Amino acid sequence: MIFNSEVRIKILALLYGLEFCEFKYLMEKLNLTPGNLEHHLKILEREGFIEVKKTIFKGKVRTIIKITEKGREEFKKFLENVLNLMSKKD
Amino acid sequence: MIFNSEVRIKILALLYGLEFCEFKYLMEKLNLTPGNLEHHLKILEREGFIEVKKTIFKGKVRTIIKITEKGREEFKKFLENVLNLMSKKD
Repeated sequence: MIFNSEVRIKILALLYGLEFCEFKYLMEKLNLTPGNLEHHLKILEREGFIEVKKTIFKGKVRTIIKITEKGREEFKKFLENVLNLMSKKD
Repeated sequence: MIFNSEVRIKILALLYGLEFCEFKYLMEKLNLTPGNLEHHLKILEREGFIEVKKTIFKGKVRTIIKITEKGREEFKKFLENVLNLMSKKD
């Protein structure tokens, strides 16, 4: 269900190689509206794929997003699966 | 919209490296019911990603599925996009 969304796949791809990132970074990189990004982050968080936290940096509240161990494993599995299907000829 | 479905992504991944394949092959490889596969093939065909044809082989009607040039290009673009996002750190 998580992977039934191009946006969620791309969010996970971006988070995959990062320790964490900011809400704004995801928004800009994926060209999403705040509402759209928020919608997908809620689903990813509910399923345990990411963690969303508030931090204060230079006196400003910032939303930090981090992929979980589960999220990383599931994304890796999904991508390996797709790449395997591409080369499978039996 | 095409890529908002894990099943459709996997169908395209399988078709990507093949000249064509049979309905039954897709069904078995992806562990889908006939109805579910048919549903996704209709969407892929409507959007010009695949061609579905009937042929007669050894006196039996067979359904042959073939990825189109558009389907191959769009799938490649999608996958490259995802892989790029994974390595993008700026």
